[in-house]
Amino acid sequence: MPAIFPSLEALRAACLDLPDGDDAAAATVAARQAQLTKPPGSLGRLEELVAWLARWQGRTQGHAQSDAQSDAQGDAQGHAQGYAQDHPQGDAPRLDRVDILVFAGNHGVTERGVSAYPAAVTAQMVANFAAGGAAINQLARAVGATLRVIPLALDRPTTDFTREVAMDEENFLAAVAAGYDAVAADCELVCLGEMGIGNTTAAAAIAAALFGGGAARWAGRGTGIDDAGLARKRAAVEAGLTRHGALRSEPLALAAALGGRELAAILGAALAARHRRIPVLLDGFVSTAAVAPLTRLRDDALDHTRAAHVSAEAAHRALLDELGLAPLLDLGMRLGEASGAAVAVAVLRAALACHTGMATFAEAGVAGKAT
Amino acid sequence: MPAIFPSLEALRAACLDLPDGDDAAAATVAARQAQLTKPPGSLGRLEELVAWLARWQGRTQGHAQSDAQSDAQGDAQGHAQGYAQDHPQGDAPRLDRVDILVFAGNHGVTERGVSAYPAAVTAQMVANFAAGGAAINQLARAVGATLRVIPLALDRPTTDFTREVAMDEENFLAAVAAGYDAVAADCELVCLGEMGIGNTTAAAAIAAALFGGGAARWAGRGTGIDDAGLARKRAAVEAGLTRHGALRSEPLALAAALGGRELAAILGAALAARHRRIPVLLDGFVSTAAVAPLTRLRDDALDHTRAAHVSAEAAHRALLDELGLAPLLDLGMRLGEASGAAVAVAVLRAALACHTGMATFAEAGVAGKAT
Repeated sequence: MPAIFPSLEALRAACLDLPDGDDAAAATVAARQAQLTKPPGSLGRLEELVAWLARWQGRTQGHAQSDAQSDAQGDAQGHAQGYAQDHPQGDAPRLDRVDILVFAGNHGVTERGVSAYPAAVTAQMVANFAAGGAAINQLARAVGATLRVIPLALDRPTTDFTREVAMDEENFLAAVAAGYDAVAADCELVCLGEMGIGNTTAAAAIAAALFGGGAARWAGRGTGIDDAGLARKRAAVEAGLTRHGALRSEPLALAAALGGRELAAILGAALAARHRRIPVLLDGFVSTAAVAPLTRLRDDALDHTRAAHVSAEAAHRALLDELGLAPLLDLGMRLGEASGAAVAVAVLRAALACHTGMATFAEAGVAGKAT
Repeated sequence: MPAIFPSLEALRAACLDLPDGDDAAAATVAARQAQLTKPPGSLGRLEELVAWLARWQGRTQGHAQSDAQSDAQGDAQGHAQGYAQDHPQGDAPRLDRVDILVFAGNHGVTERGVSAYPAAVTAQMVANFAAGGAAINQLARAVGATLRVIPLALDRPTTDFTREVAMDEENFLAAVAAGYDAVAADCELVCLGEMGIGNTTAAAAIAAALFGGGAARWAGRGTGIDDAGLARKRAAVEAGLTRHGALRSEPLALAAALGGRELAAILGAALAARHRRIPVLLDGFVSTAAVAPLTRLRDDALDHTRAAHVSAEAAHRALLDELGLAPLLDLGMRLGEASGAAVAVAVLRAALACHTGMATFAEAGVAGKAT
């Protein structure tokens, strides 16, 4: 079958050709928020989040046939008549289908003793996901999301990036395509996470190459490595930078050289979600590092994403700062598996429940601000 | 009928006579956390929260008859055999019944033009709660909690505290008792919130009296008052401090002099929850200020509580810092109504789902840390 992205150049073109969000849908949501029985802005980020969902799920631009029809009806009635008239129930933001995608990969750099856990744990945890025993299984159920785990050639770890590029172009593009294909066109929110022993080392190398500061800024304890292991991890990152750092001006080649299959798949999934105008919750440090190269191709490449949380891995906050992403949660989590993103789904559901269920001042007979 | 607290002295005695948490239950939870398929501590605050729930719901000390029985069975099998043996399902922390209590009161100090909304909005919002149109109605449903709204003599506002004490002893004790009685013995978590036009002024006055710094530190924009209103609000707080500040060494009398019925009820509810060993989520600035006097009677008076969030009202963070409470969420909310507490219930559910549902390393056949 023909590959989605036959070359790095084709992928690069796809990364440059991004749709915008739907400003009209976001404005309609904001207008309704102002009428609801609460002081203006008093739901804080919950209000912004609903506008963000509307912007990317926006149905006023022919996102889907049925939606285009309901829009036409809304437009015919005139926006001045307010939200309830303009937006029949089916036209408000929705979270009926939320997919949590967890990509798993193995890393040659684990040969350098960079992780507290043996590389075999990646496959063991994938089995644990399948059996329903991991944190993300419980969290997905708790927040009403569908968990999909996508293992990527676990029996073929990437090459140790201190020696050669982690992935050649073919392997990299295949992983990107796997991520791209995993995003269902009809889901309303995608959470992106990962599992891969050694992958905070890959993430640190990518972040260091893109944003500077060396291994000391970006390589932390990951799953909990000791001092000697941390020294090995930082040495590996520095070696990777020495060997591949010149690629920083070619962000996709850099992702292939220093990353991993699950990181490449996350990049592909974030790209697919943008093309399909589906909002994305990013999980932790690794997931954020995986999509960071996209911002070097277009400044606005992550506008359809929100950082679900800031993890206890110190480099995550630094990376979010570099990317201008404000995390929704700060719970000291550092597990990966999309676990932070899953918890944030509950916040989105709360936000949406307020928006769709609250009465307006007029409906409730509540007085407005004294003037 | 005999009053629960016939005098301030009786209430003071009840505030001094507090049960401790169940360390054994918390330790049992921590031991299980260490066995679950995740790096130790990697769920961050989610782990601490489950231990906190266990500590206050703790069933190993005869909390209820049926629980004492299941405990005895657990003990007979020996703690060394691990959580699953020691703790049959009914003995783990639970969130089957979560009550959200929203107390409403009116404030004489509104005569001084301290709020952006007219005082009539308190009763109008209570009607909105009853009709299901407020934010807290949607949030309670979204997180599977039961909402109970308790209006407190809305037709009799407290006295303007710039002139006299807001409540005499009888009115204060009645409001405390209303809060105390509202806590059901069989609920497993209580969220405490409020509605009352003008009550951030009362909260600011209490906080200023207890912690110093004057009105400028504690009186903010509340529901969104303008500059002139903020000046009036700060003047009212300063006048209250001048008149009643000497009561700071008698924290309950201070709460009567500067507070409000809904604040007194929150104090009573927090006390009842402690006596019944039920964990509490505090909502925003007003709810936190309402319970702050308890800490002047016993340093550990709020150990059974967690701050659900830090609100956009700047004084809230200052107050949490004074009390040593680390908020779970920071979403820029400033609505009251227990809205922040309700969102945090979703975080607790996520935490509990992981704890009760995850597999152990042994069960899942996942390798532990490399050594």
